[in-house]
Amino acid sequence: MSDKIKKCKTWNVPCSVMAENSVNPIRNLVDSMTITPNPEKDMIALSIGDPTIFGNLPYCEVAENAVIEAIKGRKSNGYTASVGYESARLAVADYTSTPTSVVTAKDVILTSGCSSALDLCISCLANPGQNMLMPLPGFSIYKTLAESLGIEVRNYKLLPEKSWEADLNHIEELIDENTAGIIVNNPSNPCGSVYSKEHLEAILEICEKNKLPVIADEIYEHFVFCGSKYYSLASLTTTVPILSCSGLTKRFLVPGWRMGWIVIHDLNDIFVNVRRGLVKLSQRILGPNTLVQQAIPDILKNTSSEFFEDTLVHMKNNAEIFYSRFREIIGLTPIMPQGAMYMMVGIDIETFPVFKCDIQFVEALVKEQSVFCLPASCFQYPNYFRVVLTIPETKVAEACDRIEEFCKKYYVARNGMNNGNNGVNGHH
Amino acid sequence: MSDKIKKCKTWNVPCSVMAENSVNPIRNLVDSMTITPNPEKDMIALSIGDPTIFGNLPYCEVAENAVIEAIKGRKSNGYTASVGYESARLAVADYTSTPTSVVTAKDVILTSGCSSALDLCISCLANPGQNMLMPLPGFSIYKTLAESLGIEVRNYKLLPEKSWEADLNHIEELIDENTAGIIVNNPSNPCGSVYSKEHLEAILEICEKNKLPVIADEIYEHFVFCGSKYYSLASLTTTVPILSCSGLTKRFLVPGWRMGWIVIHDLNDIFVNVRRGLVKLSQRILGPNTLVQQAIPDILKNTSSEFFEDTLVHMKNNAEIFYSRFREIIGLTPIMPQGAMYMMVGIDIETFPVFKCDIQFVEALVKEQSVFCLPASCFQYPNYFRVVLTIPETKVAEACDRIEEFCKKYYVARNGMNNGNNGVNGHH
Repeated sequence: MSDKIKKCKTWNVPCSVMAENSVNPIRNLVDSMTITPNPEKDMIALSIGDPTIFGNLPYCEVAENAVIEAIKGRKSNGYTASVGYESARLAVADYTSTPTSVVTAKDVILTSGCSSALDLCISCLANPGQNMLMPLPGFSIYKTLAESLGIEVRNYKLLPEKSWEADLNHIEELIDENTAGIIVNNPSNPCGSVYSKEHLEAILEICEKNKLPVIADEIYEHFVFCGSKYYSLASLTTTVPILSCSGLTKRFLVPGWRMGWIVIHDLNDIFVNVRRGLVKLSQRILGPNTLVQQAIPDILKNTSSEFFEDTLVHMKNNAEIFYSRFREIIGLTPIMPQGAMYMMVGIDIETFPVFKCDIQFVEALVKEQSVFCLPASCFQYPNYFRVVLTIPETKVAEACDRIEEFCKKYYVARNGMNNGNNGVNGHH
Repeated sequence: MSDKIKKCKTWNVPCSVMAENSVNPIRNLVDSMTITPNPEKDMIALSIGDPTIFGNLPYCEVAENAVIEAIKGRKSNGYTASVGYESARLAVADYTSTPTSVVTAKDVILTSGCSSALDLCISCLANPGQNMLMPLPGFSIYKTLAESLGIEVRNYKLLPEKSWEADLNHIEELIDENTAGIIVNNPSNPCGSVYSKEHLEAILEICEKNKLPVIADEIYEHFVFCGSKYYSLASLTTTVPILSCSGLTKRFLVPGWRMGWIVIHDLNDIFVNVRRGLVKLSQRILGPNTLVQQAIPDILKNTSSEFFEDTLVHMKNNAEIFYSRFREIIGLTPIMPQGAMYMMVGIDIETFPVFKCDIQFVEALVKEQSVFCLPASCFQYPNYFRVVLTIPETKVAEACDRIEEFCKKYYVARNGMNNGNNGVNGHH
């Protein structure tokens, strides 16, 4: 027996720092909130970014049939290369390529959802102690992933008064010698913004000047309303290397299928090491579900434009209803989105004096009106809330009615004049 | 403009240490080998641990139909909780529970394949700089995952002369105050060993004495040949906390579906922090494919025992043919497996003097006989090779004939007597 054995110890098993630091801000905040709906009103959840939840959006039959064929074909049950089937990667390359940014199968890595794509990209670009630039407000998983890996998050401001364009000066101020990359999310969650060609080019110019590689979260690619136009970041540069993350999740309305991908845009072989590193990281988990992989060529080539149009028309219609209704509610400031599935709404919190912050506002709104919006404190952006645009139109109107009633009750004008009832008694 | 901006820099984007350290030993070694089959003989690949590759094993119709129903039901396309559907976790709990180790849905976390289960467990138990005990020879992904996270691998010896039982003294010698856990793989890849109740209890005794938590890689659970019996580690202890990793991959012959799980066995609340940590880590990727999740209850409850039996009878039959044939080949020492899908075969390398090691032996075997076995150097265990038991029976006989011819050609008895032809000219 070795004398190194520690005898008479008692059990004490901590969990790792990485696990402790894997904090999901949405989950943490929502779990700590008091969500008690009014039993006399049915709940309207405007909080969940899952387009399948209400069952009102068109179903993608091509996708359904393609996966059934993959199962019946009985040739897609084995292991693939860790980066995925060649045929699926080729289909993604064709789907993603533009005249100015042509990619091939070797530039594509399939992943278990877009979260996993982001995880691989962040893990591959930065070491612990380095920093990465991320939008504020922005999708919370960026922070979860980076901080669990010991990577410092530096938030650059998005400007609500400029339809959530990035504050370019702020980006430049944040960059230092330890900055490993920047995440650009377009179209955006939670903002629903769609950046112009000019704004994207301005961001790329900063990246080129500072030699800053980009993770482009483009999971909402093409998910833009009539009147706006989507440009992939990679289509606008010949010099800046870009890892573009996307997948079937949003546009094809199948988030649970967990099919994401990374497309490596690297015309000048700047990402030689990163490319090799991404392949190595993909070997840790060995790729996403093969049935869906097998179905990808069919899904990407044969899904009808009507399917996409129907979804977008529905989103835009809901966005317009929400926007016009919220504009009429004193104390709220909606920001009209141009794409994605969300709208951010500012709360002039000082005019609702019984509430200290967006969280209290949202809790009371649930308690009295059974309408649940996501407080933007989840995105470290207090005194806004986010609504989803995916819900049935009838529920939009009902939700607006209730929010209006609620705001009228609690609004107190800055000069002390009350525009509605005094609601102090109504609030816990 | 900030004065911190680094101007005139040239592009230089390294990849992270984590990515650099994500080394898959099998991939690395196989990619560096010269695999050039003899064009006059069809290739027989005995190297790949994918049971679907030859199409000869029974197909799991219950699984096929359950996933098709999930697709057609159109209720399984959305996000789940990051740990998976309650119904699926309950089914896994029922499937895993034994009279002495009862678990419930809350003890189960669904993951993207068993690799991801192992990743979460290793990530959750150990910090960089700590060490973890792992079997030698053992499945190479343990090392890939641990070293990419900066966790030191300490290999404990398995003893071929004892049907690959663990060297218990060696385990105790390796434990120190920085040992965060031990991985026990039963039934085993690459050995095909199935441990007795007594041996598992002896391992558990060491864990209890040293307060060492266990990751039980039980992906081959129940995958044992007639005459052996499988015991889950958790069924044999009331004191040692165990994270058991398994999934649909092997027993249900669908590795590409990427459906794995962690079952937390923790009767005494030792894993309170680890349990919380695992849930947090699961939020980084948000769970495996929902169509397969939805199908799990049906698959686990309704797959016939004949399906499992057919596979096992086939495996055992192949194992017996390989074993009896290899025993007759001078210079080779097969170790009879009791389960899983593999057999390890020792090469008495000194009696094949033209080859320096298992890698050269295997390269020449491919070049001359078009039979590809996996050199056990992949498992850091030189001078063995691993064969898979999943291939069609007709190919087993053919492979044995060729290996026999090859060995006769190169064998040189230790006293200098040659038992076959002198093959020096035949080797590059």
